[in-house]
Amino acid sequence: MTAKFINIILVFFILSASISAQEIYKLQSPNGEINYRVSNNAGAINYEVSYGNEKIIMPSSLGFRFKNQPELRNLTFVDSGTISFREVWQPVWGQTKNILNEYNELTVTLEEKEIPMRRIRLIIRAYDDGIAFRYHFDKQKSENYFEIKDELTNFNFADNYSAWWIPNDYDSEEYLYRNSELDKMMGISTPVTLETKNGTCIVIHEAELKNYASMTLEKNGYPENSFRSVLVPWEDGTRVKLTAPFDTPWRVIIITPNAEKLISSNLILNLNPPSPEGNYDWIKPGKYVGVWWAMHLDKESWSIGPKHGATTENLKRYIDFAYENNIDAVLAEGWNKGWEMWGKGNGAFSYTEPYPDFDIEDISNYAKSKNISIIGHHETGGYYLNYENQLDEAFKFYKKYGINIVKTGYAGPIQPSGYHYGQKMVEHYNFVMEKAFQYKIMLDVHEPIKQTGMSRTYPNLMTAEGARGMEWNAWSSGNTPEHVTVLPFTRCISGPLDYTPGIFDLKYDLYKQDEFVKSTLANQLALYVVLYSPFQMAADLIENYKEKPAFDFIKSVPTNWDTTIALKAEIGDYIVIAREKDNYWYIGAVSDEERRELKIKLDFLKPGEYLMKSYSDGEDADYINNPYSLNIKEEKISSNQEYIIRLASGGGFACKIERIKK
Amino acid sequence: MTAKFINIILVFFILSASISAQEIYKLQSPNGEINYRVSNNAGAINYEVSYGNEKIIMPSSLGFRFKNQPELRNLTFVDSGTISFREVWQPVWGQTKNILNEYNELTVTLEEKEIPMRRIRLIIRAYDDGIAFRYHFDKQKSENYFEIKDELTNFNFADNYSAWWIPNDYDSEEYLYRNSELDKMMGISTPVTLETKNGTCIVIHEAELKNYASMTLEKNGYPENSFRSVLVPWEDGTRVKLTAPFDTPWRVIIITPNAEKLISSNLILNLNPPSPEGNYDWIKPGKYVGVWWAMHLDKESWSIGPKHGATTENLKRYIDFAYENNIDAVLAEGWNKGWEMWGKGNGAFSYTEPYPDFDIEDISNYAKSKNISIIGHHETGGYYLNYENQLDEAFKFYKKYGINIVKTGYAGPIQPSGYHYGQKMVEHYNFVMEKAFQYKIMLDVHEPIKQTGMSRTYPNLMTAEGARGMEWNAWSSGNTPEHVTVLPFTRCISGPLDYTPGIFDLKYDLYKQDEFVKSTLANQLALYVVLYSPFQMAADLIENYKEKPAFDFIKSVPTNWDTTIALKAEIGDYIVIAREKDNYWYIGAVSDEERRELKIKLDFLKPGEYLMKSYSDGEDADYINNPYSLNIKEEKISSNQEYIIRLASGGGFACKIERIKK
Repeated sequence: MTAKFINIILVFFILSASISAQEIYKLQSPNGEINYRVSNNAGAINYEVSYGNEKIIMPSSLGFRFKNQPELRNLTFVDSGTISFREVWQPVWGQTKNILNEYNELTVTLEEKEIPMRRIRLIIRAYDDGIAFRYHFDKQKSENYFEIKDELTNFNFADNYSAWWIPNDYDSEEYLYRNSELDKMMGISTPVTLETKNGTCIVIHEAELKNYASMTLEKNGYPENSFRSVLVPWEDGTRVKLTAPFDTPWRVIIITPNAEKLISSNLILNLNPPSPEGNYDWIKPGKYVGVWWAMHLDKESWSIGPKHGATTENLKRYIDFAYENNIDAVLAEGWNKGWEMWGKGNGAFSYTEPYPDFDIEDISNYAKSKNISIIGHHETGGYYLNYENQLDEAFKFYKKYGINIVKTGYAGPIQPSGYHYGQKMVEHYNFVMEKAFQYKIMLDVHEPIKQTGMSRTYPNLMTAEGARGMEWNAWSSGNTPEHVTVLPFTRCISGPLDYTPGIFDLKYDLYKQDEFVKSTLANQLALYVVLYSPFQMAADLIENYKEKPAFDFIKSVPTNWDTTIALKAEIGDYIVIAREKDNYWYIGAVSDEERRELKIKLDFLKPGEYLMKSYSDGEDADYINNPYSLNIKEEKISSNQEYIIRLASGGGFACKIERIKK
Repeated sequence: MTAKFINIILVFFILSASISAQEIYKLQSPNGEINYRVSNNAGAINYEVSYGNEKIIMPSSLGFRFKNQPELRNLTFVDSGTISFREVWQPVWGQTKNILNEYNELTVTLEEKEIPMRRIRLIIRAYDDGIAFRYHFDKQKSENYFEIKDELTNFNFADNYSAWWIPNDYDSEEYLYRNSELDKMMGISTPVTLETKNGTCIVIHEAELKNYASMTLEKNGYPENSFRSVLVPWEDGTRVKLTAPFDTPWRVIIITPNAEKLISSNLILNLNPPSPEGNYDWIKPGKYVGVWWAMHLDKESWSIGPKHGATTENLKRYIDFAYENNIDAVLAEGWNKGWEMWGKGNGAFSYTEPYPDFDIEDISNYAKSKNISIIGHHETGGYYLNYENQLDEAFKFYKKYGINIVKTGYAGPIQPSGYHYGQKMVEHYNFVMEKAFQYKIMLDVHEPIKQTGMSRTYPNLMTAEGARGMEWNAWSSGNTPEHVTVLPFTRCISGPLDYTPGIFDLKYDLYKQDEFVKSTLANQLALYVVLYSPFQMAADLIENYKEKPAFDFIKSVPTNWDTTIALKAEIGDYIVIAREKDNYWYIGAVSDEERRELKIKLDFLKPGEYLMKSYSDGEDADYINNPYSLNIKEEKISSNQEYIIRLASGGGFACKIERIKK
């Protein structure tokens, strides 16, 4: 460790009007490009951030208001300390094999000059790809219990940036992203992604959200482009209730010179603590099929009845398919008692009582005999206490049958009251995650709390929803082609996304004549590379994969990677991502509703000759009239050539590249 | 007209620090209960509102910021005038036959002291049930073109009221209402309904939104309980572009002593100009059935194909049913070319080309022969220009076939860009309304701009959606029982709601096994009284009405009323409404998920004996397990008795009362 890049400057001004000290600390990123400055002007604490010559955050307030304690007054900087840190760590699974975690850290201790003399430490980290800061509440000399009424962290952006955002509904992130300048942005959820006129990309998010309320942003009336953090409230209006010592989540400002580099940022993960020492062989990424899309098509039902989906017979059919097609796991939704009470006003789900037509012993034995995992399912319907009360029994029940992957769901309002993203539910989601960790159960959380990199510490938190996924295509005006060109730069920055791609019967007229998936077939394949998740579903009815050569790509594509590079991207227009696993490269590219040609360099490959098997849109393909037109082609390519990817309207491109051995 | 209640006080203070005039004007409601005060302190214009001894709005700013003009500076009050107004007017249709419109009005003219010397008039009206104010931009001495960057109208509420609200999505109001105190409320759409600790009810909304952007509210960081108006923006960030002279919409603060009285407020209608003199015999309220619910159940499709709903044969079946059951009209959705392009990225709808299996001539002749109206349908899919371009032809086409009711739809994002609630679309919705008026076409607007009482001026604007309606029960977790106990006090305050009640097959397991309507059968009947609309749909598949005695109530219930009284209500818990037409009284009552007994007095009836035919929940009814349990009963009642209404969980009560002739 060295401290050579750390610059700490402490300046005192004597103001003419009053005897008041202005103190300033500065912190720089290892490469010197990102600069953070925090100042104290008579107790008003402000920070600002710049990137090279570009101002990013103008002076913006920090602090708190409390419900049960007096306002903070006369804060002074009483102490400071700095460290430099550098490590390279290996995630259990992820988008890259090795992650560099290098930062300079500054801690400034603030204390009130007079009783109650509260102490709060501000901890700031400067990385080459962004800034993060958090508040640490020390054990106090007086009252340690804090009811936070407002966190006064503001973000006064330096310009009217272009923003990609979704509204700050406190319960759902299932929206299409909107693109507007900041001055037209409403209250929003994070991550929110901004682009400056120079092309600099900025993401505001948080990291390590463990026992605090989730942060949303709302516009201030003035000044222009000024936003404040608004924490999702408890029922009584308090935002957070905690006893010191405690930390707030990290407030994160990712900054990269362009959109492509955003994809490579590991800042959110880096801000979380490492996972405990131990053997993580029980955690395995993989692909799955399951009883799911059929329900969204109303072909089958979750609840018991003539159309019930999760039957022993149906599960075996899926297990056979998985076995024959290099798929690792089979999901069973609608297997347990309680679905017949769906939407009926109480927490009726039992997590230990299968429906009579779902013979869990028979199914799990059959799966075991074929080396296929069963993915269990725990829908709560928002009745989180009913789930907590059964949690140990629920996990034990599954473990008894060798089931160690569970998809959870929180569809519907939190009952009897509360928001999905308030402190209470943050604690619940993390309680389930920790409990699952103890039981060695991997999780796929739907209607989740937003991801904040906690899978670094708990690598059993595999993937999550928290976005408008595939199912919206089954019963709404659907997702625009643009949607999947925005997700990599917004939702996916926070962590893996269980989007559930791979619909081959894109029109499903047999079930839903008016709805369809706004994508070509090649686009569906590309999503396995474009939208990272360690669990990837092949979401269609399995009969639709029969004798489809395109399915070979899904069979082959990994769900865990050694290298990830975004080759070319414009947020909301297109993205080309290359990923490598064990020296096999895969490229995924998707376009919005525009047809386009993208020239890429292949120099990310080690010098040499390669064989590329590609799945590209046919000349006549488009997502409306001809989504199935697909060219599958094998060709020789060289690392020193350029390659032109042709994308149809709503189109995609997917390929696998392997070295030609000499 | 008299001015006896008007108090105008003009006060000058000389402030010690600077030579500055503070000017104050006051205005009182006719009954003296509501007081408005506007002050000018060195160019900072503030207003405040009180109700009896209760402060409602603390001093809150007024004003504007412009994009193309300098800030307003040194505004002074240069002139003022007052009038008192009283009229009783008769709507073409509505909840009451006679409407009292009585107010005191104050106009204060503001002018800049120096160049460009802009003039803005503030017009305030005080009614017994609320306050409204608007800005009038006079023709200016200099630049008349204004690009409004922000309207600075604030609402600094006097206390942390309980609020019923939906998020301020700029495109949709299809949300369940949330109840929280103000300090937990996010950015919201109006109308928003507040309740003080005294039980006083307040609704913030707007009236006569004709060529301006829709107003939403967002919280200010400080002070507490302070909200500012945020107008829905244009693509370039401007909120409104207008050339003086022009008026803003009215900013409306309805204030009533309790929830029941809110239902009787006609303030929103009163703030709109009367309709032009003329014969309005062509405007007729009524009931309808139609090809609609079948599509939401995926039984039929909008687009052509094997499941196509709007076929000649199916329409004739509906016409026969309407003819036999006292239903006035039949809706046909999915009749025209373009549905096969639904969601496919362009404005493909033709409004003059029926699908080949929809013989419009045959259908309209058949309907005419049975004296049934056809309700036409114009879905735009958000492609409003495609609709505008065809509008004359579209209306002419329908008129040719004698069709003079049109349901319009704007599902999906506005294309190629913009928000449903921005100025551009406000102008579009009103353009269509005015055009329809010229063609003598009645409108039922879905995905509409919010209603602001414009049906007073254009009584062909019959009803609208703009709420989370019945269809959500077909493909989501559905609407809670509570929802219909909130709508009368929120969405319905703005104008009629086409909620489309009357589902008799509440479980529809044949089509959707997991979804159902969260309501008893009696609740469905009660909605015809509880949720006012001059067009009311009997929304179920007609086969579900066959031989159902409960359908007698739908056959009988009017859609136009002489008197409306809310007898008893708690927002979000229950409501009992009585309505009268031609001396027949109807009562509708609905409950949330609680079972309850409500004792009502019948003294709203003229003294005498009556026969009541009631439809009430069976003893064992509840919306989950036993929604169909219904008692139909005829009994003698007296105007001087009390009556106990028993409501099941998710239940309802509906009755018809007629005088027993001596």
